[in-house]
Amino acid sequence: MRKKARGDVQARKPNPSSIVVARLAGVSQSAVSRAFTTGASVSEATRLKVMRAAKKLGYRPNALARAVLSRQSDLIGVVMGEITNPFYPEVLELLLGALEAKGYRVLLKRLEHRDSADAAVEEVLRYRVRGTIITSSIVSDEMARECGRSSVPVVLFNRHVKDLGVTSVCCDNVDAGRTVANLLLDTGHVRPAFVSGSDEASTNRDRKKGFLDRLAERCDWDVPIDGGENSHAVGYHAAKRLLSAPSRPDALFCASDLLAFGALDAMRDLGLHVPKDVSIVGFDDVPMAAWPAFNLTTIRQQRQLMVRETMEALIGQIEQGSAPTVRLVPGELVLRGTVRESTRARSATAA
Amino acid sequence: MRKKARGDVQARKPNPSSIVVARLAGVSQSAVSRAFTTGASVSEATRLKVMRAAKKLGYRPNALARAVLSRQSDLIGVVMGEITNPFYPEVLELLLGALEAKGYRVLLKRLEHRDSADAAVEEVLRYRVRGTIITSSIVSDEMARECGRSSVPVVLFNRHVKDLGVTSVCCDNVDAGRTVANLLLDTGHVRPAFVSGSDEASTNRDRKKGFLDRLAERCDWDVPIDGGENSHAVGYHAAKRLLSAPSRPDALFCASDLLAFGALDAMRDLGLHVPKDVSIVGFDDVPMAAWPAFNLTTIRQQRQLMVRETMEALIGQIEQGSAPTVRLVPGELVLRGTVRESTRARSATAA
Repeated sequence: MRKKARGDVQARKPNPSSIVVARLAGVSQSAVSRAFTTGASVSEATRLKVMRAAKKLGYRPNALARAVLSRQSDLIGVVMGEITNPFYPEVLELLLGALEAKGYRVLLKRLEHRDSADAAVEEVLRYRVRGTIITSSIVSDEMARECGRSSVPVVLFNRHVKDLGVTSVCCDNVDAGRTVANLLLDTGHVRPAFVSGSDEASTNRDRKKGFLDRLAERCDWDVPIDGGENSHAVGYHAAKRLLSAPSRPDALFCASDLLAFGALDAMRDLGLHVPKDVSIVGFDDVPMAAWPAFNLTTIRQQRQLMVRETMEALIGQIEQGSAPTVRLVPGELVLRGTVRESTRARSATAA
Repeated sequence: MRKKARGDVQARKPNPSSIVVARLAGVSQSAVSRAFTTGASVSEATRLKVMRAAKKLGYRPNALARAVLSRQSDLIGVVMGEITNPFYPEVLELLLGALEAKGYRVLLKRLEHRDSADAAVEEVLRYRVRGTIITSSIVSDEMARECGRSSVPVVLFNRHVKDLGVTSVCCDNVDAGRTVANLLLDTGHVRPAFVSGSDEASTNRDRKKGFLDRLAERCDWDVPIDGGENSHAVGYHAAKRLLSAPSRPDALFCASDLLAFGALDAMRDLGLHVPKDVSIVGFDDVPMAAWPAFNLTTIRQQRQLMVRETMEALIGQIEQGSAPTVRLVPGELVLRGTVRESTRARSATAA
C-alpha cells in the first residue's frame, strides 16, 4: 500500500521479530528480551551483540506485547481538564517528568466537561494502566467513588474529596481563602468582594468558603460576588460590574490569577489604579503573576510539592497497596504590588 | 497485598475475562468482543445482554491485548517540547480533540531538549503507535531523517524541513518575517531591531531570515539582534539592552509573543511608552496577546488550520500510505495597539 516517498527514504518494512534478532546475534531469544530490559541480567558482550543485530534489522521491542504477556503495563492514565488554564501546563510538565523518571509512560486523555469524566476514566482503564491521575477540579463525587472502587489506583489532583475512599492531593483552599480575608482586613480594607470561578469546582467553593467565613467572623460587610467561570473574560466583566456599583468594593479576591488578570484589565479600562483605588488578590501564582505587567499579590499553589505528593501516593498505592489518603498542601501568600500596604500589613497572616 | 481502605470501598478484584462475561450473558466470546467494538455487527439485544453482564462482573475490554492480537494499536505518540510555552497548551488541546474524534489515543512524551528527541521517538515507537506527532521546533535534521525512515508515519509540527522525506506542518515563518519588516517600514520606522529566540529552532531562524532579508532590500540600517532563548526573562533583558543603546531602535520585532511580553515589561521599567517611543511586534498570537494589558500587534499562527493539516497528513499516511508532504500555513498579521500608526500604515502588507 505505502508508496516510497522520495529517493532518500528507505522502503518501509514491518518490524522483525526478536527471534530473527536472536538468530543474527547468535544468542537466545530470552537474551534479546533481557538486553532490552532495564536492570535485567545480561553480559555487556551479549548486550552489544543484540544491539548491533537489532540496529541492523531495525528491530524494536514491543512494549504492548510485553505488557499483555506480563499482565503489567507501565502506562499511567492522565485525565486532564482545563489544559489551557495557565496553571496546568507546568503541572503536566512536572507530572510527565516525575512519571518518566519512575519508568512510567503517560496515556493522556482530555476531560472536556464534568459529564465526560466517567467515559474518560473508563477509557484509560481499558488500556490496563497501572494508575490514573485526574487533574481536574470538576470531578463529581459519584465519579470519585467509582474511582475508589476500581482495581486501579487513582489520584485526584486539585480536587478535595472527603470520605470517598479515593486519594486526593489538593491545595488547602479553605485555609488559603481565610489567609486572603485576613490580609485584606489587616491592611485596612473594609469592602472586599469575591470574583468567582465555577462553583462546580471544589477549589472555587473552598476558596470562597474560607474567604467568606473569615470575613463573617471579622466584619459586617455583605460581600458581593460576581463571575462564575474561570477565564480572563469573566474576570474582566465581573470586575467591571463590581467596580461600577454605587458602593464600590475596595478590594477584589479573585479565585484564580486568570480572573485577576481580567480584573486588572477592567481597572485599566475604568481608569482605576491598583492598589491605590482597589486592591486585587489572585490565586495560583502562575508564572505571569510575577511579570511586572501584573506584579500580582496571590496565593501560590506549591505545584512541585503537589506533584511530589501525587507521585508518592500513586506509587505507594501501586507498589505497596497503600490505603487512599487525602493530602492537603498549604498555599503560600506571595505579597507583590496589588494590595495597598498599611501600617498593619505585617500582621497579614495572623489568624 | 492491597488493603481495604474504608468501609465504603468495595474490595478490589482482578478484571474478569471475556469468557466469564460471555457465559453470564449466554452469548459467544466473539459476541462480547463485537459488543465492545464501535461499528461492529451485533444485535441490540445481544449488546444489552453483554453490557449488563459486563457491568455486573466489572469487566472491561483489554485494549492492549486487542492491539497486540490485531497488530494494530490506536495509539498516536505525541512528543512535545516546550509544554509551558503559552503557544502549546492550545495546540495540545486541539490535537487531543482531533485525535480522539478519530478514535485514536495519545501517548504523550516530553521532549526535554534537542538531544533527547531520538530517545523520545524511539520510546513511543516501542508502543507500536500508529503514528507520531512531534510538536517541537528543535528537531535535528538527522532525527527528521530517521523519522522518515521509520515504518511509522511521523508529522513534525512547527518544524520546517525541506528534502528530508518527512511530513512537516509549519507556519510560513520566512514570509511572516517579511510581513513584519514591511509593516515596520511602511509605518515609518527606520531603526528596527530583532529580539531573538533560540537559533536551534527553525521557527526562530526563519522568522529572522524573512525579517532581515526584507529589511536589507529596503533600508541600510544595520539591524541589532539580542536574545537567544524563548522566555519572558530573555525578552525583558534583551529589550532593556537594545533600548538603552546610544542609537535606540524605534521598533522591536520579537520572535515570539512571550519575548514581546518581556520587552513590554522592559519598556515600562525604562519609562518608555508603546507605541509612542518604541513599537513592538510579537509572533504567535497566544490568547494573552489580545488582553488589554498587552494589546499586542503580532503574527497569528493559525493553530486550528495547522492542526487540521497535521491530522490530514497523518491520517493520509496511516490509512492511504500517502507520501510525506511539507505544508506551510500562512501567518496572519493582527494589528493591535503596539505599532505606531502613520499615514502609510495601510500599505503594511504590500510586498
